Amino acid sequence: MVKLTQTVQKGGCAAKVAATELRSILNQVQFPNAHAELLVDGRHFDDAAIYKVNDELSLVQTLDFFTPILDDPFMFGQVAAANALSDVYAMGGLPKTAMVILAYPIATFEKNWVVALLQGVADKVKEAQANIVGGHTIDDDTLKLGLSVTGYCDTRKYWTNQNCKDGDVLILTKCLGTGTHTAALKRQFVNESEIMDVVNSMRQLNSVPSMLNSKLYSAVHAATDITGFGFAGHSFNMAKASDKLFDIKFSKLPLFEGTLESLDRGYLTKAHRTNRDYIKDSANLSALQELEILALCDPQTSGGLLLSVDPIHADEVLKEVKTQFPHSCIIGDVKSKDGKEFLRFS
Amino acid sequence: MVKLTQTVQKGGCAAKVAATELRSILNQVQFPNAHAELLVDGRHFDDAAIYKVNDELSLVQTLDFFTPILDDPFMFGQVAAANALSDVYAMGGLPKTAMVILAYPIATFEKNWVVALLQGVADKVKEAQANIVGGHTIDDDTLKLGLSVTGYCDTRKYWTNQNCKDGDVLILTKCLGTGTHTAALKRQFVNESEIMDVVNSMRQLNSVPSMLNSKLYSAVHAATDITGFGFAGHSFNMAKASDKLFDIKFSKLPLFEGTLESLDRGYLTKAHRTNRDYIKDSANLSALQELEILALCDPQTSGGLLLSVDPIHADEVLKEVKTQFPHSCIIGDVKSKDGKEFLRFS
Repeated sequence: MVKLTQTVQKGGCAAKVAATELRSILNQVQFPNAHAELLVDGRHFDDAAIYKVNDELSLVQTLDFFTPILDDPFMFGQVAAANALSDVYAMGGLPKTAMVILAYPIATFEKNWVVALLQGVADKVKEAQANIVGGHTIDDDTLKLGLSVTGYCDTRKYWTNQNCKDGDVLILTKCLGTGTHTAALKRQFVNESEIMDVVNSMRQLNSVPSMLNSKLYSAVHAATDITGFGFAGHSFNMAKASDKLFDIKFSKLPLFEGTLESLDRGYLTKAHRTNRDYIKDSANLSALQELEILALCDPQTSGGLLLSVDPIHADEVLKEVKTQFPHSCIIGDVKSKDGKEFLRFS
Repeated sequence: MVKLTQTVQKGGCAAKVAATELRSILNQVQFPNAHAELLVDGRHFDDAAIYKVNDELSLVQTLDFFTPILDDPFMFGQVAAANALSDVYAMGGLPKTAMVILAYPIATFEKNWVVALLQGVADKVKEAQANIVGGHTIDDDTLKLGLSVTGYCDTRKYWTNQNCKDGDVLILTKCLGTGTHTAALKRQFVNESEIMDVVNSMRQLNSVPSMLNSKLYSAVHAATDITGFGFAGHSFNMAKASDKLFDIKFSKLPLFEGTLESLDRGYLTKAHRTNRDYIKDSANLSALQELEILALCDPQTSGGLLLSVDPIHADEVLKEVKTQFPHSCIIGDVKSKDGKEFLRFS
């Protein structure tokens, strides 16, 4: 029986190039001047770009792929698709088209594994009511799978990392801890059947924009999804883009069962360290234990949405998202900056 | 000095999974039902998908990436971008947005190589008057580079593999032979300075749709670009989608200098064989020498456009494309099928 995680060195979003490294490279490249239609680019680390088609309609575009973090091809296909589609949802958009990115070793991979991988992807794209319109497949040493996704949003309203307002309530929709649990899986200390809550969370579509009526949609002032840079890294990106302080109660953060224990056992990735480096000068972590900091920096695959919500409608939004994301909770609020810190944990 | 081709096993479009293998996998996957907006999907092996936004505007979407076929990072970046953008042009569209797909070994790759790779990509995207709107970068054993591209076309007219008409004239815009020449480069029998005509051809944008006025654009009944499946494979896809016979004069096909010699020296890839398998039951090759067949099956990277043109306007189209593609020429014509053959070479 194939165990996908045993075919590669690095797993999931942990294989991402660290944010600081990437930024230093991108700063040296002269990119084409932005079209006036490019309403949101990568400047504020948003999850996807927004490109205006006309005054009503804009495209939401994103691309993501990674090496296997699960052993089962079908479930890994589902997670890879949910993870890529998530960036469109995080901008408040709805996915329309998807193109598959697939690299695998032809010589050693059985054809039915590839069919299972693609079926997992196809099922999630179908659930998102989008279409698979193409893709590219190459022979490669290690499996990589993902999607390039295009969604639609309203040119007059969508969600970005900017625009958090003083007093906003912060809602997180999924538990944290996929990084350490999948690291344990890769080292074969657990198997998938023991971490099905983690698997089920990763393969759940972040389709919050389709769940909110127009009033509640507009009550979301900013949003992002929690992925490779961890809860701390993505919270920092949002706080920085909005020039606000996020005041977060660690005890309110939803964690998968056994997350702190798994971190304590040393089931870590390189990203635990690079994610911590990324936020260390911008976050006040003094109230936290070492394991708690590791949990904040745990790289997520297909993590939840972090929503910055008008306090007047926060309870309504929470009630709505809880119907499909039962672990959703209010984890802190947004304040004016009173120093160089963007994140403060208590 | 870095030699990119020495960092990988497989190069360029030769690393593509063979068409027959891929088709047999895709046939076993249940894909979501196509939206009514999906005007062109992968059924006829078109270069990109067409997704209707409204009665005037449609999206043209494609995704391509591969391992290095050149040693110089900047030039390889240019070729990878030109190759990916080409699929939009081959549908008669104009590129608008691009997302970068980049995988490289962080531990061994110098940062300035990565900057050069991305600068090559950025320069070509700029030349195409498109924007880079995002991308994804991962740590991987071997370099892979490419783009996911979205272009615009008119919903009422675009180019596909279908719609070749009896009597159409076939025009090819670039020389053939990039596969064998880059195979020789990889084996270090030549260096880039000796094959600059090949390099310059691969990095030239296939921006034919922007060169033709409305009358000449409409005179192009069908189009494709010649890439990994070689001239024979892509001609076959177009002839089959149109249910026509392509009658091609081998002596008219433009080849890079030294192409037959390079093939004769055995500078081949696996794709030379798989491409031949792909067309063997559908092509009459009896008039050709062995080396000529290899040239037809040579996998191209960023190859030219193959245009099926109304004979009344063929000379005008040829004159126009020759201004930027001097090797363009008429290489055959389109006939009714008179048997099971889709391709006949003389």
